[in-house]
Amino acid sequence: MPILVQDVIDMLTAPVETTVPDSVDQLIHGDPHAVVRGIAVTFMATQQALEQASRLGANLIISHEGLFYRHRHSTPILVEEPVYAAKKRFIEERDLAVYRFHDGVHRYRPDGIMEGLIRQLGWESFVNEHLSAASIVHLPRSTAGEIAAHVKQSLGIGCLRTVGDLTTACERVGLLAGCRGGGDLAIPLFEKHKLDLILYGEGPEWETPEYVRDAVGMGQGKALLVLGHLESEQPGMKLFADRLRGMLPDVPVFFIPVNPVFQVV
Amino acid sequence: MPILVQDVIDMLTAPVETTVPDSVDQLIHGDPHAVVRGIAVTFMATQQALEQASRLGANLIISHEGLFYRHRHSTPILVEEPVYAAKKRFIEERDLAVYRFHDGVHRYRPDGIMEGLIRQLGWESFVNEHLSAASIVHLPRSTAGEIAAHVKQSLGIGCLRTVGDLTTACERVGLLAGCRGGGDLAIPLFEKHKLDLILYGEGPEWETPEYVRDAVGMGQGKALLVLGHLESEQPGMKLFADRLRGMLPDVPVFFIPVNPVFQVV
Repeated sequence: MPILVQDVIDMLTAPVETTVPDSVDQLIHGDPHAVVRGIAVTFMATQQALEQASRLGANLIISHEGLFYRHRHSTPILVEEPVYAAKKRFIEERDLAVYRFHDGVHRYRPDGIMEGLIRQLGWESFVNEHLSAASIVHLPRSTAGEIAAHVKQSLGIGCLRTVGDLTTACERVGLLAGCRGGGDLAIPLFEKHKLDLILYGEGPEWETPEYVRDAVGMGQGKALLVLGHLESEQPGMKLFADRLRGMLPDVPVFFIPVNPVFQVV
Repeated sequence: MPILVQDVIDMLTAPVETTVPDSVDQLIHGDPHAVVRGIAVTFMATQQALEQASRLGANLIISHEGLFYRHRHSTPILVEEPVYAAKKRFIEERDLAVYRFHDGVHRYRPDGIMEGLIRQLGWESFVNEHLSAASIVHLPRSTAGEIAAHVKQSLGIGCLRTVGDLTTACERVGLLAGCRGGGDLAIPLFEKHKLDLILYGEGPEWETPEYVRDAVGMGQGKALLVLGHLESEQPGMKLFADRLRGMLPDVPVFFIPVNPVFQVV
């Protein structure tokens, strides 16, 4: 029996326990009744990822982030813009279905993106607590610098931005994936969960980083590692692709990794 | 005649042509009628900057960004937090006045922060147009890599994040200081002003950077340099301090530079 785009969407969303009001998850392009010939899972449906998916014969792309450079697809600003137009034309010509799967995978329990990050770091046995937007791990005592080196190696990150003294001894570590590094979410975790170190994907530069700088200036041993948005969430989409492959043995499922968006010079 | 805190605030705000609704500019702490013994100007009133200001004998701190790690001082979340409490206690014990001067300096014409950035880059003679949130410069033809090297050297930046091919020839460049790197502001500039390159302080990672990646993937010669929020705005506060010194010859005016908040490992 052929698998339709809507069948796959139903399968993805079945384990989502709580609905997200005003969710960004949607079939951005394509026909829900189209037969799925192959699925490409990616963190970010870049032009290059779409081309690779198409070459591989996938006609359903499941992307964590959106197509057009902003969180809400419903309010595009770029309609008259040639990059936007060319990307849209490519999708239409190849008749690709593109499903944004963002809020749903974050609502898996545990959060599917966080679970992938923790596995990639090899920290499954150190998990202390999963909160709704963060996870707390209790690592064997090591320095912030040693943890930074481990993070770089296990996630394949070339350059990591850090705040604080890298010789700081750390045990209790907070993890926030994606854009959850803002002060409102991250700062209270330090005190509430007695954290030595936070790792996050992305956040405003003068919120959590400046808090950590001030804390260190007051003699408190705290530190911060900033992984990058993509770098912190891509492992979760890879884990999701692996699981989807197991659930759909008759459909080719590809994971398309996306390179870091930044070079550092 | 003694200069009061309020006199200085009146002097700063006099050139502001348009008022900002719901502005963040305010006397965060201190008595507007206190006599000013010295002024310390800084991008960011970190704990260390406050200590240095106090040692120098300044009792009025003028800071571009806020004290407590979030844009709106009016909605603090950190009252029970020891770093917050210690910083507040330090300010109270030293009887410091702290004035946040953010929206006002951005509303100078030209934007005082942008003017400082352009001067520090030595690009005054290349300015093409000042827009409300960005400036357009027309540089002698050079590669994105050559411009990156110039930016690093003139702003004292150790590591710069870039997107695109550094051999791309660039002439038309858009500048966005601070947190104005988001897609809504930055992306339309490329097409509207026929830009080859954008430099911004800070912005969401999967907006403008991913747009530039896609444009490059389609064969368009575009590039992006991400300076850092602090790195892009500090020169403007230095310029402002220099001008304030000229306006207040009888009051010591210090500029307190703040180190980059991130190390890169």
